[in-house]
Amino acid sequence: MTDRPQTPLLDRVQSPADLKAFSDTELERLAHELRAETVSTVSETGGHLGAGLGVVEMTVALHAVFDAPRDKIIWDVGHQCYPHKILTGRRDRIRTLRQKGGLSGFTKRAESAYDPFGAAHSSTSISAALGFAVARDLGGSVPEGLGDAIAVIGDGALSAGMAYEALNCAGHEKRRLIVILNDNEMSIAPPVGAMSKYLSRLYAGAPFQELKAVAKGAVRMLPPPLQEGAKRAKDILKHTVVGGTLFQELGFSYVGPIDGHDMEQLLAVLRTVKARAHGPILIHAITRKGKGYGPAEDAADRGHARAKFDVLTGKQKKAASNAPSYTKVFAQALIREAEADPRIVAVTAAMPDGTGLDLFAERFANRCFDVGIAEQHGVTFCAGMAAGGLRPFCALYSTFLQRGYDQVVHDVAIQGLPVRFAIDRAGLVGADGATHAGSFDVAYLANLPGFVVMAAADEAELVHMVATAAAHDSGPIAFRFPRGEGTGVDMPERGVPLEIGRGRMIREGADVAILSFGTRLQEVLKACEALEAQGIRPTVADARFAKPLDRELILRLAADHAALITIEEGAVGGFGSHVAQLLAEEGAFDTGLKFRSMTLPDAFIDQASPEDMYAAAGLTAADIEARVRALLRPADKAALRA
Amino acid sequence: MTDRPQTPLLDRVQSPADLKAFSDTELERLAHELRAETVSTVSETGGHLGAGLGVVEMTVALHAVFDAPRDKIIWDVGHQCYPHKILTGRRDRIRTLRQKGGLSGFTKRAESAYDPFGAAHSSTSISAALGFAVARDLGGSVPEGLGDAIAVIGDGALSAGMAYEALNCAGHEKRRLIVILNDNEMSIAPPVGAMSKYLSRLYAGAPFQELKAVAKGAVRMLPPPLQEGAKRAKDILKHTVVGGTLFQELGFSYVGPIDGHDMEQLLAVLRTVKARAHGPILIHAITRKGKGYGPAEDAADRGHARAKFDVLTGKQKKAASNAPSYTKVFAQALIREAEADPRIVAVTAAMPDGTGLDLFAERFANRCFDVGIAEQHGVTFCAGMAAGGLRPFCALYSTFLQRGYDQVVHDVAIQGLPVRFAIDRAGLVGADGATHAGSFDVAYLANLPGFVVMAAADEAELVHMVATAAAHDSGPIAFRFPRGEGTGVDMPERGVPLEIGRGRMIREGADVAILSFGTRLQEVLKACEALEAQGIRPTVADARFAKPLDRELILRLAADHAALITIEEGAVGGFGSHVAQLLAEEGAFDTGLKFRSMTLPDAFIDQASPEDMYAAAGLTAADIEARVRALLRPADKAALRA
Repeated sequence: MTDRPQTPLLDRVQSPADLKAFSDTELERLAHELRAETVSTVSETGGHLGAGLGVVEMTVALHAVFDAPRDKIIWDVGHQCYPHKILTGRRDRIRTLRQKGGLSGFTKRAESAYDPFGAAHSSTSISAALGFAVARDLGGSVPEGLGDAIAVIGDGALSAGMAYEALNCAGHEKRRLIVILNDNEMSIAPPVGAMSKYLSRLYAGAPFQELKAVAKGAVRMLPPPLQEGAKRAKDILKHTVVGGTLFQELGFSYVGPIDGHDMEQLLAVLRTVKARAHGPILIHAITRKGKGYGPAEDAADRGHARAKFDVLTGKQKKAASNAPSYTKVFAQALIREAEADPRIVAVTAAMPDGTGLDLFAERFANRCFDVGIAEQHGVTFCAGMAAGGLRPFCALYSTFLQRGYDQVVHDVAIQGLPVRFAIDRAGLVGADGATHAGSFDVAYLANLPGFVVMAAADEAELVHMVATAAAHDSGPIAFRFPRGEGTGVDMPERGVPLEIGRGRMIREGADVAILSFGTRLQEVLKACEALEAQGIRPTVADARFAKPLDRELILRLAADHAALITIEEGAVGGFGSHVAQLLAEEGAFDTGLKFRSMTLPDAFIDQASPEDMYAAAGLTAADIEARVRALLRPADKAALRA
Repeated sequence: MTDRPQTPLLDRVQSPADLKAFSDTELERLAHELRAETVSTVSETGGHLGAGLGVVEMTVALHAVFDAPRDKIIWDVGHQCYPHKILTGRRDRIRTLRQKGGLSGFTKRAESAYDPFGAAHSSTSISAALGFAVARDLGGSVPEGLGDAIAVIGDGALSAGMAYEALNCAGHEKRRLIVILNDNEMSIAPPVGAMSKYLSRLYAGAPFQELKAVAKGAVRMLPPPLQEGAKRAKDILKHTVVGGTLFQELGFSYVGPIDGHDMEQLLAVLRTVKARAHGPILIHAITRKGKGYGPAEDAADRGHARAKFDVLTGKQKKAASNAPSYTKVFAQALIREAEADPRIVAVTAAMPDGTGLDLFAERFANRCFDVGIAEQHGVTFCAGMAAGGLRPFCALYSTFLQRGYDQVVHDVAIQGLPVRFAIDRAGLVGADGATHAGSFDVAYLANLPGFVVMAAADEAELVHMVATAAAHDSGPIAFRFPRGEGTGVDMPERGVPLEIGRGRMIREGADVAILSFGTRLQEVLKACEALEAQGIRPTVADARFAKPLDRELILRLAADHAALITIEEGAVGGFGSHVAQLLAEEGAFDTGLKFRSMTLPDAFIDQASPEDMYAAAGLTAADIEARVRALLRPADKAALRA
């Protein structure tokens, strides 16, 4: 607490309205204080640091010029919103960031009227802002009113097709709409793709606008008033065909590039835009991720995400762990397979670090493809490579694979192409909360004809599943694994392909069988220990496959036990539902079988520690134990419904 | 048969290799014959006409210059592939198009080595082609070999973000890759968006290249050989910043615009590109959808899709129907709601006709938005409008909603925003086959917390569900309805909002209860008639809601009957799975309940008549009757498993 920065101006800010009383010079000083407060906060909470530091001046300038919450400031992705939260009435809770019951690490509608549209996944802001602009123009009504719609989007987020779709639509709609391109040449990793190079070229040779000419310049860059429509149309035509920017070609007015850390420039441009803009306008601001905090600026990832750290040194305070992360186990297993098989290639969608493919790329640079935030393309690109005889691994987080779902169905499943999906962050993910949870993949993959769907029960199983996927050429295959560290089991030297559709018995017992799919197996075994002390010895099996199901194993479990419980870290509609369908078809329910399916609950679970989230989900050892005990007391029907 | 055109040159073509022996003049004549054969074919089979007619010359030129199947010609969407099929060994089966056991109406890998990548959904071709290019460069191996990768994509398909993602990645990869932009200023409807206008401007003032200068011109337009890399880089920089096309800005060489119906130009450009291209190149060809067949050229949709027709007059032979289509019922119901409520707006993704929103747009032009083939943007745009106090209806086909799935989860469901999803073409769709089936929506929506998911049992129910959705402001809501005509029931004057989560009893019986979700209800009732004659009187209920379930109704059915059957036109993981989860949790299986869930089978079903598809799926009245009878004979276990 004693280390907290001095913030005399910031201390006077209860809401953005307070900024209106500040002089431009004070706003500049306020930005410095806000930066210090942001660093201090993240040093205590951990979280996304670099992105917020890059938009401190922009945050101050936006709130000084525009009138939130009437004007809708929509932060794309939302991980750069900590300074925004500090200015918008949430400073008193800012040090609860990403904790249970605390502030979300992203923008969130339920949290504040100053967050008009929540985020976490990338590239949604322009679509949402256009929605607000239309609502304003068509007489929509919300308590805060509907003023300007402003999307702040990073250059990395522009690699997503969704952002292009939105620009294309906004350019067509011609409504007043403000898009601020926060160009820091960094998303999480250095951005890839031709668009990124194009943006660099846009300001490569061009010096920033002269300070004093900015206001005048911005006016010049804006389109003339509407009554000059005819002349304007002619100008646009001329400019776009013979030398406008790509954004102008898509129907936007283009202002920039400007220095996104220069408060004078920002204020001048935003004031001009506010006063004069009509139609869609794009302001191209150049910023530096991690700006103003040495340890972040110096880091390769510009301080993207940080554990708690020491402010002076930037040194992170991370708990030591004995077990490797699932991500790293996946990467190493894939590298071993790729050493033996030159057909193996890997695709990431702008997450080389998060998926472990940075390690793969170090070893096989020309066999690793970072397609940008472009899951739709990434999946079909893999399908094309598979059709060309390669063995592509598509490494995505469960929640982001949702972006490529149609491509999974249409290009992979219907064609039966052997694309390998390595699904990281399956299940609950902790501090990133509901938007990053991987809850639905089993449900939306296991009902696709011809798909093989696996879940690893531990990190050794993951190694075998990588080998299984590598060897599986007859159709699509997916394996899911959670965020975080493994269980510390002995690791195999090399993965051995599993028999497709074959589970494994873990322990033979009596009375009740527990059929686990994925890493809840450890909790199941803990529950068994507790039950054993009470004289109950459950049978436990690891299904390994949600598709194809191990019919023989499941029907045997059903035949040999009075009760069968499935457990998975996924929503209803997935593994347990497929087991229920099998049991129903085979008549296992006809003469009585106590069947229960433990799944994620029908609720989005807010950020918390993984332990707290599992408790909220009812998927801990204690929950399993309670389920088993209730099931063995048939009279106590009420307990079953708890 | 007697009307078939004379095709002396085409008669000599068994495979594309035969085109190599033709002179350029003969190729031009061949194109005329191919056009006549295409018109003749579609007049007998029905199907997509206009798109194929627009690429007849392109098809001939591509096969004359390139070497399929070694070179991979990938037709985006694939509905323009009939001429390609005729040239690639499938002429003898071409008049089985879109029929059971016949040729698919789209490209299809399983059908021919000349279809290296199947399609039906739009905008996948560049991603797939890049996959083949990488496979070629990295030593992938397929029986046909790996040569050039050529994507042929329409201007409408370029409105999809996926195409942009692919261009962005291909421009970055710099591999030899050929993209042909087939610019006919039409997708299914006139294309929308700023990109479309941009493309028009590209050739608005520019005359086509002079015929004789084309070959030379194409060379000039290509980048110089690689050894001149430095100079080239400089040129690119210069051009892209000060006046290149958008495609050049994304890293492509740009050739065009050329006349896509001028065989001489096409051959010259393609030959030059084949001989000299390195890196990614985009050939911009201007074509006319429906070209060369008067009735198609004259039609508003340029002959996009046609029932069987008379070749001379173009008059279509359609069976008369007494019942209105579900699509039209939806549109009319939405218009009635919108008349009473100015907050209602509607969004279509390039399907104003298909979704009925063309009717809505006639009435409320400024409240209807066609966002292009951009489901990702479309869904989040709706979320933004909902956040701004409007009441958006997002009208999509079930299969295309898959394109916006992450947006449904992340922007709509997690935020609990009241976006209304009108899901057309839910279930099996007939001649369009597996790629257009809407099989998965119930599974992937009903497990989203807070969602309401309905299915209409008939067209009157649909009217009520439109009203229900309009009135439902507390969160997201979806209603699904099938392709085709309704059942002819009496129609209500105006929809009345249904109670959320409340089903309805259709008939009280005994022994067995059938709980239907959606339009299979008619088949259930037919089955009941047959069963009644055998002394069996099933109870029948219409669930209306897959989420929230009508717990009271379902538990009462379970308690009062020895057997319960659910039926739905969707894959496992959907309605029946949610019912099974409820029954399990409530202990309904514990003491024996014969439960069966009839769903779509675990297979992609090829095109056929709707009747044949339902038979293949096992969802006809006869199937239901057989299920009930088997279930009432508990001894006969084998029959249950059939």
